[in-house]
Amino acid sequence: MISGNLLYEWAEQLFPLSRSLSGSGVRSTLEFLSSKVNSMTVQEIPSGTEAFDWVVPQEWEVSQAYIEDMQSNRLVDWKQNNLHLVGYSTPINAVIEKEELLRHLHFLDGQPDAIPYVTSYYEKQWGFCLSKNQLDQIGSGPFKVVIDSKHFDGVLNYGEIVIPGNSEEEILFSTYICHPSMANNELSGPVIATAIAHWLENLNPRRYTYRLLFLPETIGSLYYLSRNLETLKKNVKAGYVLTCLGDSAMFSYIPSRLGNTLADRVAKCALEENGQFKSYSWLDRGSDERQYCAPGVDLPVCSVTRSKYHEYLEYHTSLDNLDFISPDALEGSLDLFRSIVLILENNSKPVVATLGEPQLGKRGLYPNLSTKNAWSEIADLMNIISFCDGNHDMIDIASKCRIPISKVMENIHTLTQHGLVRQ
Amino acid sequence: MISGNLLYEWAEQLFPLSRSLSGSGVRSTLEFLSSKVNSMTVQEIPSGTEAFDWVVPQEWEVSQAYIEDMQSNRLVDWKQNNLHLVGYSTPINAVIEKEELLRHLHFLDGQPDAIPYVTSYYEKQWGFCLSKNQLDQIGSGPFKVVIDSKHFDGVLNYGEIVIPGNSEEEILFSTYICHPSMANNELSGPVIATAIAHWLENLNPRRYTYRLLFLPETIGSLYYLSRNLETLKKNVKAGYVLTCLGDSAMFSYIPSRLGNTLADRVAKCALEENGQFKSYSWLDRGSDERQYCAPGVDLPVCSVTRSKYHEYLEYHTSLDNLDFISPDALEGSLDLFRSIVLILENNSKPVVATLGEPQLGKRGLYPNLSTKNAWSEIADLMNIISFCDGNHDMIDIASKCRIPISKVMENIHTLTQHGLVRQ
Amino acid sequence: MISGNLLYEWAEQLFPLSRSLSGSGVRSTLEFLSSKVNSMTVQEIPSGTEAFDWVVPQEWEVSQAYIEDMQSNRLVDWKQNNLHLVGYSTPINAVIEKEELLRHLHFLDGQPDAIPYVTSYYEKQWGFCLSKNQLDQIGSGPFKVVIDSKHFDGVLNYGEIVIPGNSEEEILFSTYICHPSMANNELSGPVIATAIAHWLENLNPRRYTYRLLFLPETIGSLYYLSRNLETLKKNVKAGYVLTCLGDSAMFSYIPSRLGNTLADRVAKCALEENGQFKSYSWLDRGSDERQYCAPGVDLPVCSVTRSKYHEYLEYHTSLDNLDFISPDALEGSLDLFRSIVLILENNSKPVVATLGEPQLGKRGLYPNLSTKNAWSEIADLMNIISFCDGNHDMIDIASKCRIPISKVMENIHTLTQHGLVRQ
Repeated sequence: MISGNLLYEWAEQLFPLSRSLSGSGVRSTLEFLSSKVNSMTVQEIPSGTEAFDWVVPQEWEVSQAYIEDMQSNRLVDWKQNNLHLVGYSTPINAVIEKEELLRHLHFLDGQPDAIPYVTSYYEKQWGFCLSKNQLDQIGSGPFKVVIDSKHFDGVLNYGEIVIPGNSEEEILFSTYICHPSMANNELSGPVIATAIAHWLENLNPRRYTYRLLFLPETIGSLYYLSRNLETLKKNVKAGYVLTCLGDSAMFSYIPSRLGNTLADRVAKCALEENGQFKSYSWLDRGSDERQYCAPGVDLPVCSVTRSKYHEYLEYHTSLDNLDFISPDALEGSLDLFRSIVLILENNSKPVVATLGEPQLGKRGLYPNLSTKNAWSEIADLMNIISFCDGNHDMIDIASKCRIPISKVMENIHTLTQHGLVRQ
Repeated sequence: MISGNLLYEWAEQLFPLSRSLSGSGVRSTLEFLSSKVNSMTVQEIPSGTEAFDWVVPQEWEVSQAYIEDMQSNRLVDWKQNNLHLVGYSTPINAVIEKEELLRHLHFLDGQPDAIPYVTSYYEKQWGFCLSKNQLDQIGSGPFKVVIDSKHFDGVLNYGEIVIPGNSEEEILFSTYICHPSMANNELSGPVIATAIAHWLENLNPRRYTYRLLFLPETIGSLYYLSRNLETLKKNVKAGYVLTCLGDSAMFSYIPSRLGNTLADRVAKCALEENGQFKSYSWLDRGSDERQYCAPGVDLPVCSVTRSKYHEYLEYHTSLDNLDFISPDALEGSLDLFRSIVLILENNSKPVVATLGEPQLGKRGLYPNLSTKNAWSEIADLMNIISFCDGNHDMIDIASKCRIPISKVMENIHTLTQHGLVRQ
Repeated sequence: MISGNLLYEWAEQLFPLSRSLSGSGVRSTLEFLSSKVNSMTVQEIPSGTEAFDWVVPQEWEVSQAYIEDMQSNRLVDWKQNNLHLVGYSTPINAVIEKEELLRHLHFLDGQPDAIPYVTSYYEKQWGFCLSKNQLDQIGSGPFKVVIDSKHFDGVLNYGEIVIPGNSEEEILFSTYICHPSMANNELSGPVIATAIAHWLENLNPRRYTYRLLFLPETIGSLYYLSRNLETLKKNVKAGYVLTCLGDSAMFSYIPSRLGNTLADRVAKCALEENGQFKSYSWLDRGSDERQYCAPGVDLPVCSVTRSKYHEYLEYHTSLDNLDFISPDALEGSLDLFRSIVLILENNSKPVVATLGEPQLGKRGLYPNLSTKNAWSEIADLMNIISFCDGNHDMIDIASKCRIPISKVMENIHTLTQHGLVRQ
């Protein structure tokens, strides 16, 4: 079983890599993750490939990017923090006045310590990001600005894991690998997805086939959907977008567009057993469920995070760093998704084998002495049996009986062993 | 565009006319209103005509009606206020004692200034209405009582406007023209209905055909339904009863019997955008929706008023006069019904033209620079797109996205122009 | 009409009988009850008969049962209170030490005055029940323990009343006759069921056939269902389990498993008119509705009690005695079930005979003088008419119109007599 500490170590090793939509940072990330599991394949999509309404952009590579004053003091340097460079910046090598430079600088007035994360994938421009504190110290210029970057026809990469089960019916997990050095809103997703895959490889038997995708956000999921839509619509019974799973906040649930799919029902059921959680609306979504749930795509995909993207101050800044996540939180998140898988694997619509209540006493399941309090001892079991009518699945039963899903699964297991329930 | 001031002027001119179920007051009222629009026709129904369970009553005309003391002082005179005479009073010319007179007088203990409005359409009797203050001063009698009225086989009149649209599908507006000198619970309805018709005559194109009825309440709508039921059931997609639209209270919504018809949904949507409003139940109804929504009639007709009939103190008394209504309130009510029409005209179930989210950036609809706050700027637009699945109409979308319907219509218009949405 | 006093007298006479699942106490009880009605038959089921997952147990008879000290002082004696003996105790005649005796004694620490009610139908053992106070006084032993009981192949008895109506459709009442000397959670049910039967025998005409069952709990209903399931599923339109109907608490409602059957709707409607009541969930059930509503049985059976079993302190102890119930409470409970029957008998989906509102004035049902307050006087009647569309039954109408069901039935009756409504 992969521990929270190991998950955190993986995140530490992946943190410095310069990820973007495409390029060597993504490839290194996927290479690292694929070394932890048996079954990851890494795919390439050529630049210019169409994906629904979109086109796969060119590959982007940077060798250096900095701002210097006229005394060659490095004021801002991409090598120190890859958030300093606006993603997909065009090259430049020039001396410019402060006024012009300012038009290309991004900072956050309200968070003077934080370097913001900014990209411009679909319009050619250049820019630097820095903290307000840094900005206040850069002097009056002029400045030497160097971005050694190139855009070229290359590939977009993504990783895919397929772990077959007894059925072609699939459970989908999707996470993204396109953000530079941020911990919660980047690395928590891929490391937990990898750990889920590792655990699933060892889970036997598997009722469902499991598909785990490690994609650049938006363009990656759009491309994948454009090539696999019919198969996914046919097979995927539930899916989850994995992101923001490493900080210490309580869990958040973001529903699918349709709102009560199997994915949603199982997620809520697992969350309810786990403790308090925060419920959002579809209107609060913001990751690849936007594509998976789009009209005409309509996959049953929802999302469980800890602090939701957009909702925490550190989001999309340099403050979303390794201090913001913890081994415990990562491990708790992995546990939650294991619960989700176990509910999916075990869920059924059980049917009681007798007409009328079964006689539990002769099977040792009922106190033979009927006293004033006898009922309360077996009320949960009797309540569960009373809903084993073939119309309620275990999630319904947990909700109707107001007991945790794990207790329902346990009792149904016992009843099944006594031949009292058929699944 | 017809202003609130003009609506108020119309009400001023119509106020003194002696309206009743039938007779010259109704005809003068219809003549006045028909001069403001192109397309009103005035119909006649002979007395004695059957209408479902009802019969059109005789025509009633009054030339004078008063009470005098023995010194020929006029104590109560219909020419001063036509509310003084009980509607459809039989003739009398007699000197009677106070005791007998009192059996024919109607007043309101709790509103000593107010002359109540009383009718007796379906039982032959006579009576006068006066304020409690007047009653306290009439002396001890005897009294000369004169009512110069006649009931005769004549006609019942109503006005009808039909403004054709591209479809035979109809929107119905119904108002009544049978109350004497009262402003809110009488004239506000007909003047706004006339202004709506005037505006509709100039609206191009019109998706729907519009039918506006100016009827004596109850018997008028029953007659109309009895002769046009099948056509109305086939064509009417939404309808509204117009009354009590001139006072300064917030709007009230009275649902149709079925409760969630297109008429109801559009009314609620327009009201929600407009501001706070009061919601009533079908049990609180009281005008011609009683007939339009009766079992077996089942038209999708609801009502939007300001102060609802039965709910304000001035209702059905002489205090419901021109001081009780205002140009601003009339204009605001007209605006609301124009919003209702525009929602009806523009509503559709839009379908997004792409699979997955469209790329808004290349169409100038998305900030190309992806920063921390980029999403919030286009969240409404993205939310709208996410429900353009052909299953939600714009009213549903406004509700799901929690944004005003006008903003939904505007965004769908923009998306349609960019070819991103099909209606 | 059977009074509360008479019901109480019946309970007094039945109280001392030593009832159990089977045996002479049950037979005496059924003999007594059958003398009060015309149509009760008493059935016998041989020991060993299978009933679904269960087997009818042997018959059990006791002639004496006591504990004495070595000075022949009777410390506990079944003849004083039949709760002293654990139901279905095996025989014993021995002198034993206190330590061993204690393993066979049942008492309630928290209720030192109360003898608990304990049975062991399905495992052979013996035991005595006594109050904590008694226990504290029994001395140090040894003790002479005598139980003169025998188990033998005999019969299980139950009573059945069938009162035919115009239709084969049935209303079922079920109560149990297997508890020894307890008043609320035993005798209130059978005496009220008997009184309902007596009243029904004299009700003419009867739309429904009525079936009343007096069964040993669980095994009795299971046996009955096992032999009559298809007929019951075909014919039973509503059913009620009768128990705990004699104490002074407000009524309680325990829904059927499916939750909104005709039985539930009628019960809630009658309870709402009656006053405040407490609503429980299916999870709080505990009597024979467990069998009637079991998956695959699925009869529309719910329960109305006063204090619900398990919820009052005296439940299943000697404190549930004749002081705990009262003539008034019994009579009120009988009244409630008569209301339930009358709603069932009269309920229909009425249809108004006119299109548009009927003219009530010409039928004397509407004030002919239309004044400011005329509407409020006939609002209930008009509201009822507005839902006479053939889609709403009287229960729906009462709920929609927010008026008591009895007022709906009365108004529909009047309207029917005037030919304005067809049922």
